Amino acid sequence: MALSGGVGGAKLVAGLADVLGPDQLSVVTNTADDFTHLGLHISPDLDTVIYTLAGVADPDKGWGLADESWHFMQALARLDGETWFNLGDRDLATHILRTQMLAGGMPLGAVTAALSEKFGVGPTILPMSDDPVRTMVTTDMGELSFQQYFVREQCRPKVRRIRFEGCEAARPVPEILALLADPDLAAIVICPSNPLLSIDPILSVAGMRGALKAAAAPVIAVSPLIGGKAVKGPTAKMMQELDIPVTAAAVAAHYGDLLDGFVLDTVDAASEGEIAATGTAVSTTNTLMTSREAKQDLARHILERINPGF
Amino acid sequence: MALSGGVGGAKLVAGLADVLGPDQLSVVTNTADDFTHLGLHISPDLDTVIYTLAGVADPDKGWGLADESWHFMQALARLDGETWFNLGDRDLATHILRTQMLAGGMPLGAVTAALSEKFGVGPTILPMSDDPVRTMVTTDMGELSFQQYFVREQCRPKVRRIRFEGCEAARPVPEILALLADPDLAAIVICPSNPLLSIDPILSVAGMRGALKAAAAPVIAVSPLIGGKAVKGPTAKMMQELDIPVTAAAVAAHYGDLLDGFVLDTVDAASEGEIAATGTAVSTTNTLMTSREAKQDLARHILERINPGF
Repeated sequence: MALSGGVGGAKLVAGLADVLGPDQLSVVTNTADDFTHLGLHISPDLDTVIYTLAGVADPDKGWGLADESWHFMQALARLDGETWFNLGDRDLATHILRTQMLAGGMPLGAVTAALSEKFGVGPTILPMSDDPVRTMVTTDMGELSFQQYFVREQCRPKVRRIRFEGCEAARPVPEILALLADPDLAAIVICPSNPLLSIDPILSVAGMRGALKAAAAPVIAVSPLIGGKAVKGPTAKMMQELDIPVTAAAVAAHYGDLLDGFVLDTVDAASEGEIAATGTAVSTTNTLMTSREAKQDLARHILERINPGF
Repeated sequence: MALSGGVGGAKLVAGLADVLGPDQLSVVTNTADDFTHLGLHISPDLDTVIYTLAGVADPDKGWGLADESWHFMQALARLDGETWFNLGDRDLATHILRTQMLAGGMPLGAVTAALSEKFGVGPTILPMSDDPVRTMVTTDMGELSFQQYFVREQCRPKVRRIRFEGCEAARPVPEILALLADPDLAAIVICPSNPLLSIDPILSVAGMRGALKAAAAPVIAVSPLIGGKAVKGPTAKMMQELDIPVTAAAVAAHYGDLLDGFVLDTVDAASEGEIAATGTAVSTTNTLMTSREAKQDLARHILERINPGF
């Protein structure tokens, strides 16, 4: 099982799918970035994971479809519509179908399964919850919803606090709890996604952390930081603003006693001792996934450490 | 004031707007073809009138925008979505904005005014009602909603009966009643739209027919039939199936005592006497609007007959 946010996580998910085969992988995906825009339910991380595994993701942007056109957005702009969040013409079909299925009473998990199948995705994609959880970011310009902070304000405001609205009332989708209780589950991989914005919301869902700790399978996280920098996104900036050291060791400490193992980049090998001292098994390798082979190599490195152990 | 359905009506509306100037024209538009599709509120006739007056309508299809692209529809087809009703990428911006405004509680009249303004349309476009009225067509394959009959089944089923669901509870938008009560209103022009599918729904709205009859302004209809044939659409086929003679005189008889004047095509001049015998003033001219000048000529012909009368 993998826990993933959007682009960085989806890269490792693709590697794991290649190495394991599609029927051996389930991906628990962050839905706290979901929001309603122009009347449409948008699930950015689910779409990135689905599009990535379907091989139709835009390779450069980190969101949306490859070979996309923008005629809807151009027409919307001419009509003075809200244009701060880009919706491609082809991408719209996903949002409109998802919104229609949800309006018809289907839970998000079932909608995600239906969309995954339509896109021909092999692995099981699971939203963290059927219930709404929404990331709210308190910044120096007040509290913003995630997409206001992330897209509209381009992560510029200073972050003071992050909370996940609705997390106490939300429950993991049943398939997640069933998988975590399954003695055959081999491993739980926390992908190199933003710990604060992508993994924390998953862990915030009531009952999720307990079920992860209770699982027999080891929990192995991959550092999203390489040499104190995130490959993409505001991870480093946010950690700094929240007075967390911008290091792989701080990420490991953030996940704390949830972890059995931690994989960090070779350039951060100096931190190995610090993490190992907390009782977490550590291993270093190349974590920069610049090619399909690199994704598979990282996936293989992780899987080789599950059994017999680090 | 003009009463109009989609494409045929919109042509005369364009001619009237040219001849009168934009601030001298209000267009009462059929909304009984409206429906909810893929979660979006679609108003086909309002869009055709707005797009035509904005000069952005597709000149050939009779619906939608010129220079349209279809990437959304292609993506929807790949996801097994409903593709029997075409929605262009640019056209989608109109439907999404309208749906969002309606969901926010704006009545359809106010939404239409907002969209007209965004498209830079001068004349006042009025939906016949803020309330939902839906054309239901009883056919030899059962009762169909208008779009099922018209688009999905391509008007092939035989029509037995037409009814306008919701018409008893619907009321004309207030601006229509105010205009009809205005002593300065010069004329009410029933455009050459389908009498059964485009004009009858307008007349079915509770209070509409009475307000039209009570208006001081003369009511002048233009025949949608030329030599027993409709320029576009199923008017002739439907009249036949409903045992109405497929003649301009039958259209005049259909509108009955609502009419003060009737304009028919020169090729139907032989019917002039039959219509005049019912007490309706009659006039013949070229009603086939194949150019901007032809639209203006027909508009001018009608307007010249208001005062001093036919």
